[in-house]
This record gives sequence, structure tokens and C-alpha cells, in this order.
Amino acid sequence: MTDFSFEILKEDKNSKARIGIIHTRHGDINTPYFVPVGTLATVRSLDSRDLDDLESECTLANTYHLHLKPGDETIKKLGNLHKFMSFNRPIFTDSGGFQAFSLGFAREHNINKLGTIFTGEKRSEVPEEKFAHITDEGVNFKSIYDGTSHFMNPKKSMEIQSNLGSDIIMAFDECTSPLNDYNYTKLAMKRTHVWAKESLEFHDKNQALYGIIQGGWFEDLRLESAKYINSLPFDGIAIGGSLGKSKADMHKILDWTIPLLDKRPRHLLGIGEIEDIFECVHRGIDTFDCVMPTRIGRRGSLYLNPESGGNLQNKFRLHLKRAEFKEDPRPIDPLCTCSTCKRYSRAYLRHLYKVNEIVYFRLAAIHNIHFMLELMKEIRESIKNDSFKKLKDKWFNHP
Amino acid sequence: MTDFSFEILKEDKNSKARIGIIHTRHGDINTPYFVPVGTLATVRSLDSRDLDDLESECTLANTYHLHLKPGDETIKKLGNLHKFMSFNRPIFTDSGGFQAFSLGFAREHNINKLGTIFTGEKRSEVPEEKFAHITDEGVNFKSIYDGTSHFMNPKKSMEIQSNLGSDIIMAFDECTSPLNDYNYTKLAMKRTHVWAKESLEFHDKNQALYGIIQGGWFEDLRLESAKYINSLPFDGIAIGGSLGKSKADMHKILDWTIPLLDKRPRHLLGIGEIEDIFECVHRGIDTFDCVMPTRIGRRGSLYLNPESGGNLQNKFRLHLKRAEFKEDPRPIDPLCTCSTCKRYSRAYLRHLYKVNEIVYFRLAAIHNIHFMLELMKEIRESIKNDSFKKLKDKWFNHP
Repeated sequence: MTDFSFEILKEDKNSKARIGIIHTRHGDINTPYFVPVGTLATVRSLDSRDLDDLESECTLANTYHLHLKPGDETIKKLGNLHKFMSFNRPIFTDSGGFQAFSLGFAREHNINKLGTIFTGEKRSEVPEEKFAHITDEGVNFKSIYDGTSHFMNPKKSMEIQSNLGSDIIMAFDECTSPLNDYNYTKLAMKRTHVWAKESLEFHDKNQALYGIIQGGWFEDLRLESAKYINSLPFDGIAIGGSLGKSKADMHKILDWTIPLLDKRPRHLLGIGEIEDIFECVHRGIDTFDCVMPTRIGRRGSLYLNPESGGNLQNKFRLHLKRAEFKEDPRPIDPLCTCSTCKRYSRAYLRHLYKVNEIVYFRLAAIHNIHFMLELMKEIRESIKNDSFKKLKDKWFNHP
Repeated sequence: MTDFSFEILKEDKNSKARIGIIHTRHGDINTPYFVPVGTLATVRSLDSRDLDDLESECTLANTYHLHLKPGDETIKKLGNLHKFMSFNRPIFTDSGGFQAFSLGFAREHNINKLGTIFTGEKRSEVPEEKFAHITDEGVNFKSIYDGTSHFMNPKKSMEIQSNLGSDIIMAFDECTSPLNDYNYTKLAMKRTHVWAKESLEFHDKNQALYGIIQGGWFEDLRLESAKYINSLPFDGIAIGGSLGKSKADMHKILDWTIPLLDKRPRHLLGIGEIEDIFECVHRGIDTFDCVMPTRIGRRGSLYLNPESGGNLQNKFRLHLKRAEFKEDPRPIDPLCTCSTCKRYSRAYLRHLYKVNEIVYFRLAAIHNIHFMLELMKEIRESIKNDSFKKLKDKWFNHP
């Protein structure tokens, strides 16, 4: 019905890493893959032609945002999200729950929408009671755009995602914060499990539905959630936050969870630092989505290969604001083949960044997304050639 | 020395319109031509690859801005402006005087640099005494970026433009406001004439230098200025503001001035509405520069051909903010062949505009600049085919 399937091409001998292909009616995604986030039907500062030029195999849009602006019914009237944004490859959507819970925070603090919408990192600071009210029935929340009141539950989320016509959709879940205690996290997990079944019942059967594992950073809850979500007939499995307070916590959560899952595709929500990509592919994750490349790009941080100076300490980032680049005629990363590096110098990009020229955001996004997609290609090649560990060592321990 | 020359291919029988080619060492400009303004070494929201894709034959950068950010000496160290911004076609620069006089205003009112730098329209509101002090020696002014004090005079302006390495440079002049009286306008014109000779003396002889006619909206001053500037060995002649308080004033100024000029290329500074283009080409102008297409685009106004609903009353503009476009699947202008119109709907562009997505600015700029360049092509063709008047009638009187 969905034309959706997942094919595992090879499993690594020394880790849980694997290469595969997610087949959808809008084309294939080669895994492991990093999915660029196109919150409002655009990867911030890029258009769909840029995504084509970057050979991006897919994108992920936000149900919450598109439900509010321009409205999922508007998008349905115009065809679907693919037609709306003129992107003819697979599109993921999230369930909308996460932003519904968390974005009131930004609204209260009057954070400018342009370039600075919160999409989750500060979730622990969100005073949920005031901006979103969660019960077993669903979530009442206020729009970040105009303060109007809205309601979302599994049925509604499935309906919105059906209107959007995305290829891969997410079950409606409650994402907890690392600050939530055991009892609340358990309650939210139980609710998520009820909502998982409702999402299965109500979702558009032309769309591939991923269930979401919750349970915070508590081992018994994660185990229970993994077993339960894995027992349901989802097309794929996503692992939701909170992923704990540290990278070590996140690794533990994956180590607990993934051995309980069968061979369906596995998505890790909202993760995307380079170190994380390696660690999570190692632990068996197939796809990631994250706003990191575009967000850090806007703030002047551009990715560097290990041979060009990137390492764990600098998070593989060059910081354009530094005076040393003022007259530097070299491209950001001399090894990079992106259209930004082919044409522009560090000096020119630094100038555009320092004077807030709009075009800078796009040139930075092109570099950082190209970089992530090339990294994923390198990772897939390494798994194919039994050299994933060697590649990881090169990135983590380059002199 | 400059590899600069101007060839007139044909003069219209019914008007002063003419087609020609400006030859420079970085290539040719077919006139009449609209020169997109790249204030800070980027046409706002576009990169040089976009300019190439638009087949833009040239650009005009601002001496004032580049002197301050990143500094003309930095650009010289990196080669020149062409190399800095990776644009290998002819570049104009203005003299820097106009912004030096006028931009303190924006600074006092704390206007955000992103997207809203003043570049002249509000000049009449500028309290010159406080932010810039003009004498016969030159102008002392404060930087819009950091309030630091700077000085500019003809010698300094020529030195900066030499460092930038642009192909066509402008003499240092004093641009008056329509609010200035006869006596002040005369004084400023006399100063401009002295500075014209100094500019000729000090300019880099590898660059083509345009003299600037001043004199406000006073006939005798404009006549005097046109005769004097035309008598000097400039490579081209520019007509500077103030151009009066109305379009009729501007037309009168051109009608007084242009008959006094020989066959050198004529540039009109800072003008660029569609109606103006026709009226000024008619009166013998060869090149224009203006931030209009990108600025109005950022504000949601996109150009329309007459057959698509554009006319004098709506200034050939569609206003995206209108609710009627919310679910409109058509391109901005169905007759347009730009990359924005080829791929995106009014509905999608309106959505991006309404939620302040950065990419909107670029897609709008591509449409509006493409539109202007196509219009100029159409105008050149019409002069070639003796149908300029017919074309103007079509645009001005389309039912």
C-alpha cells in the first residue's frame, strides 16, 4: 500500500552499523543517512533546487509548524508537501507533539522567528503548564505565531500528516525532559504507548508510520518501551528524547534499546553532531534528523574535515568570526567539493557573516549540509568495505 | 590604458534612446542596461553564482560600505573586488560620497543592518551637520557600523576605488537634497566641479572614470553643470541627484541636460522603477543602478508583465501579502522564465514571505532582477527594430 520497504544490504562485523535502502514511492534513501530538516517546507535559507543540487535524498518537515503556517489543509489543496515545496523526493514529518509542548517557551520570551526558532535544545527550560496542557486525551497548546489555541492528539496528528502527504510519518508521542523524574517519565511513556496504538489505528495507510520509543534515561522504562513499540506493526522505529544529560547517557540508551529491535529502519530524532553520527551508526541507527548544520552555520561555524583541521575538540568546526580569517584566500575546507568552497574564500564568507548579509546563511548551509551528506556517504562506503572502525578512528584520532 | 570604450550601435529615430556596448577589460555591457546593486560585494541575498545564472552583465558596489567593511585594503590584498566576490564581469563603484553624507541618519535611529540599510531614498531627512561635516576639503563622517570617524575627499575616493579595482568608477561629488535651496545647491555644484577635476587628476588610469552632473532641480545650474562636466575628459557621464520632487522634475532635468552631452555613455544614479526606465531610456540614458528590485522584493512586491496584470497603477507589482494568493498554484508571473517562476507557486512564496523564511529573499530577488534584465533586453530589441515607442505603449497602456 505504502510502497515502503527497507532492505539491509550489509551488517558490519565489528559493530551494529549497517547499510541499507529505504524504498518509498518518492524514491530511495541510502542509509545510514542524515536527513536535513526543512521545518517550514524549506531547509532554512535553502530552496528545493539547492536540495537537488546537494543531491539530498530526503528532508524532514515539522508538522506543528506547517499545521499553523500555512496550514496543512492549504497544503492539501495544493496537492501535498512535495508539490508545495517542489521537492520530489522522500519527505519525513514529525508528529508535531514535541513542538506543541515546547515552543510556547520561545513565544513567552518573544524570540524572533527569523533564524532563531527553538526546535528543542532548550526543552528542559520549558514551563509546560503555562503554554501547553497535556492530558491522556492530547495536548492543548498555543501557537508560537499568533497565540491562538490548538489541540493535538494521535488522531489529529495523523490527519495533519495525511494532509501533508509526507512519505514517512511519526506516531504522536510525549517527549519528556531530562529534568522529569522517574514517575513522570513512566506516566508519559505509558501515554506514548496508548498513543502509539491510536496512531496506528488512525494513520493514512498510504504513509509509512514510525513508532517512537520513550522512557527517558531510565533503563527499565527504555527496555519496556523498546519491547512494546517493537511489538507493534510500525513500518519503522524512532528513538525519542530525552536522551539523558550527556553523550554517555545517549550511548547507554541506544545500547539498552537497539538489541531489542528487529530489522525495521531505526531513526534517531534530533541528533546530529559529527561525533554522535559515528557513535549512533556504530550502535545501529539508520537515519538522523537535526537542524545542527544550518543552525551552527548561521552562527559562523563551518565544518572541517580531519585533514583540514577538524577534530573532536573543535567539534570539526571552523569559527568564521576569528580575525585570522580576515584575509584568508583559501576555501573553508580545501578538501570540500561544495559549491561554496569551489567559489568563495574564507575572507569573503567572513565578510558576509560579519556584515549580516543574507546570502551568507545560504552559502554556509550549502557547505555544512554538503559536508554531512558526504560524511554519510563515506560512512556507507566504509561499512561496505569493512573499514567503518578505521574511518571512525581517522575522524576521532587524526593528529 | 583602460580597455574601456563605448560603441553606439543605433540611435532611435523618435527619441534619444540608443543601443550600444560598453567595452571593459572584464567584458561587455549591452546598453541600455540595468545594473544590479551589490552594496557590500553581494547583490542582497544573491551570490555571484546567482548573478552568473541571471546572466547579469555587471554589478555596482558601494565604495563607502566596502571601505568600512571589510576595508578596501583587505580587498586589494586579496586581489580586487572581482576576485573577492568571485564575479568576473564589469563592476561599477560609486564614489562613496553619497553614503558618507547620508548614512549617519540610519545610525542615529539604530536601524538594523540586515535588510534595511538606507541607501538614499530618505536623504532629505538627514541632519547632515551632526553625522557628516562637508567643507571644500572633503567630508568628515562617522561609520554606520561602529561610529568611528572617517574622512573622504576626491583623492581618497579615487584611492579606495583603485584598491577595489572596479572597472567603472565615479568622481567624488556632493549630492544635494530637494530640500536644499538654490544658493546651497549652487555651492555644492561648484564644489562638485572642483572635485571633478581632482578626481580626474588622482584616479587610477586603469579605471574608467565617470564625471557627475549636479545642480539639483534648478535649470541654470543643471545646464552649467552639464556643460562643465561634458567639457572634461571623463570616460562617461553620470547624472546625480537630487532629481527633484517628482517624476516630472526628473524628466525636465534629463531634458535640460542630455542635449548638452556628447556621445560618451550616460549613467543615471539610483533610479530604477519600471516607468522611469522607459522614460529615461527615451531621454538618452544608457545605464541605471538601483536597489529597487531587491528591496521591494524583500517587502513582498514582485514584478508582473503587462500581460500578467502589471500596469502603471500597480507599478507592475504583485503584492504577496494579499490573502488571494494563499492557495494560488500559479507562478508569480506565468510569462516569466526565471528559476523562481519555473519552480515555485505564489502560494509557496507567500508562505515563505509570511513566516520570514530567509530563502524567500533570494527567490524574490531572482525574480525581480531577472525581470529587469529581461525588460532591458526587450527595450534593446525594440530600439533595434524601431519599435521602442510601441513597446513603451504596450507597457504603459496595456488594457
